[in-house]
Amino acid sequence: MNDARDLVDGRHVAIVGAGLVGSGWAVVFARAGLRVKVFDSQAETQAGALRSVHEQLTALERHGLLAEPAAHVLARVSCEASLELCVDGAAYVQESTFERLDVKQALMRQLDATLSADAVVGSSTSGIPASAFASGLRISPQVLIAHPVNPPSLIPLVELVPAPATSARALAFATALMTGVGQSVVHVRKEVDGFVLNRLQAVLLREAWALVEDGVASCEDIDKTIRDGLGWRWSFMGPFETIDLNAPGGVADYARRLGPLYRSIAASRAHAKEWSEELIKDVESQRRQELSAESLAERRRWRDDRLAEFAAARDRREGS
Amino acid sequence: MNDARDLVDGRHVAIVGAGLVGSGWAVVFARAGLRVKVFDSQAETQAGALRSVHEQLTALERHGLLAEPAAHVLARVSCEASLELCVDGAAYVQESTFERLDVKQALMRQLDATLSADAVVGSSTSGIPASAFASGLRISPQVLIAHPVNPPSLIPLVELVPAPATSARALAFATALMTGVGQSVVHVRKEVDGFVLNRLQAVLLREAWALVEDGVASCEDIDKTIRDGLGWRWSFMGPFETIDLNAPGGVADYARRLGPLYRSIAASRAHAKEWSEELIKDVESQRRQELSAESLAERRRWRDDRLAEFAAARDRREGS
Repeated sequence: MNDARDLVDGRHVAIVGAGLVGSGWAVVFARAGLRVKVFDSQAETQAGALRSVHEQLTALERHGLLAEPAAHVLARVSCEASLELCVDGAAYVQESTFERLDVKQALMRQLDATLSADAVVGSSTSGIPASAFASGLRISPQVLIAHPVNPPSLIPLVELVPAPATSARALAFATALMTGVGQSVVHVRKEVDGFVLNRLQAVLLREAWALVEDGVASCEDIDKTIRDGLGWRWSFMGPFETIDLNAPGGVADYARRLGPLYRSIAASRAHAKEWSEELIKDVESQRRQELSAESLAERRRWRDDRLAEFAAARDRREGS
Repeated sequence: MNDARDLVDGRHVAIVGAGLVGSGWAVVFARAGLRVKVFDSQAETQAGALRSVHEQLTALERHGLLAEPAAHVLARVSCEASLELCVDGAAYVQESTFERLDVKQALMRQLDATLSADAVVGSSTSGIPASAFASGLRISPQVLIAHPVNPPSLIPLVELVPAPATSARALAFATALMTGVGQSVVHVRKEVDGFVLNRLQAVLLREAWALVEDGVASCEDIDKTIRDGLGWRWSFMGPFETIDLNAPGGVADYARRLGPLYRSIAASRAHAKEWSEELIKDVESQRRQELSAESLAERRRWRDDRLAEFAAARDRREGS
């Protein structure tokens, strides 16, 4: 991972917005040997950031996912008293503020006034395109989306989505930096709603909810269909490789055999419907039978342990 | 797994149609301690069945997935010279013949003439509802769909889909038998196109192909989005549990926050379009850059090894 250190050439990474996502990013960059400065305009969030980073590092260490003691990594992370101190001299800024257009616009105007011309800004937003909050500014060519999956310290995927104004240099830098710190980079070439990840998640969830609404299957049986069926292959191959291996002649053979069925399935679903309050209550009640509201937090820790085991197994396999 | 042996009460399981799917089912039942008789009307397929069963058992043994030597399991599987010999006295018949309506209809008429009134018939079809080939027969109440994922000896999911004519007793028996041999049972309550698994796969694939067609992302980047992003959680939680843990207040909270975005994403996609030959060629060419046609078979073996590792890890975790 020395690539990343060469790339920033002694400069640091600034984390602006230090909630769950921001602190996860701090772990990703610090773990790769980079200096990280953190700022959050909410004093309370700022105060919790180092504790969150510490907890995440301890969990990684427990699963054998750190190459050095957690304390050494933590020592590379500092909190700064102002946005200016945080971003001054930064090679890269990861923006993870509240998911609201006006918040992002205000931040970009502030950065426009202070940021050096060669720093690149990645936004963690899961849905707002960079054009919507970084147009017409001096720094517009320096800004793009770098959308992670939570927590980014465990799940490697990051979607890079340039705006039309984003420079090729900024995209190339973000690609090299993210790859250098061990993330898995996906290039989203157009600013479409939901980028790629949430579009794929959206269509699957819409069909899942509709199957519950139509009385075809329970939530738990739909979860089983994925976790005991489709999900295994998708967790190490993705859908195109899966179907490429599922027909004797590969993906084109598969498409000609099953394309018409899939087309009729997709066409049979009216996608304009809202999830009614009644349906939401039904799904919630089904989920609460599987897992009580009081157990949500514990189950989230279980999930993160499983993800860490997943990451550790992947590291062993790839010898990294 | 003694449940399954009690359930069949000394009788055997008949496998009719002994290609990849049928031989996989033979492994599932024999591994659980049941006697299995196999028949295929194609002499060549019949001849290859025991070899395929043996290969699958050897792979399971290598991954520590058999509780006894492969040879002991193999000894419980025999090939029979006729359909009548195969199904005579069977407690359960797993039908895995060619995926064509007339083939299944003809087989059901033959079974109608010979099968005892208490045997249950499960069909491996991935798309044809039981009503279409098992209506108006003496054995209609005994027939339902038992749709596996390939290979069923590694991926536990099975969709049970009764026809309106299927008896509650047959569904209960199939549920108990499949659970008893270690499969993960999903109940599909209505005969919808694609059942549950292929409906979920269909909508995700349709969106994936459309993103390629629109130039939003490459096949490889879409595969990454799933295998390095969404797929990890889905492989042990399913989509409902995933979103239940992804909002502070659980699934209803999630639905109210993200429902509108997902609705607009789903509504933005015209699902009636065919996959054009041009698009199929583009996807194929992208896949062939990742994996040559000559390497497909080798990569399928790699996939099955990974699935076996997955199954072994799951067994260790669940202490089974």
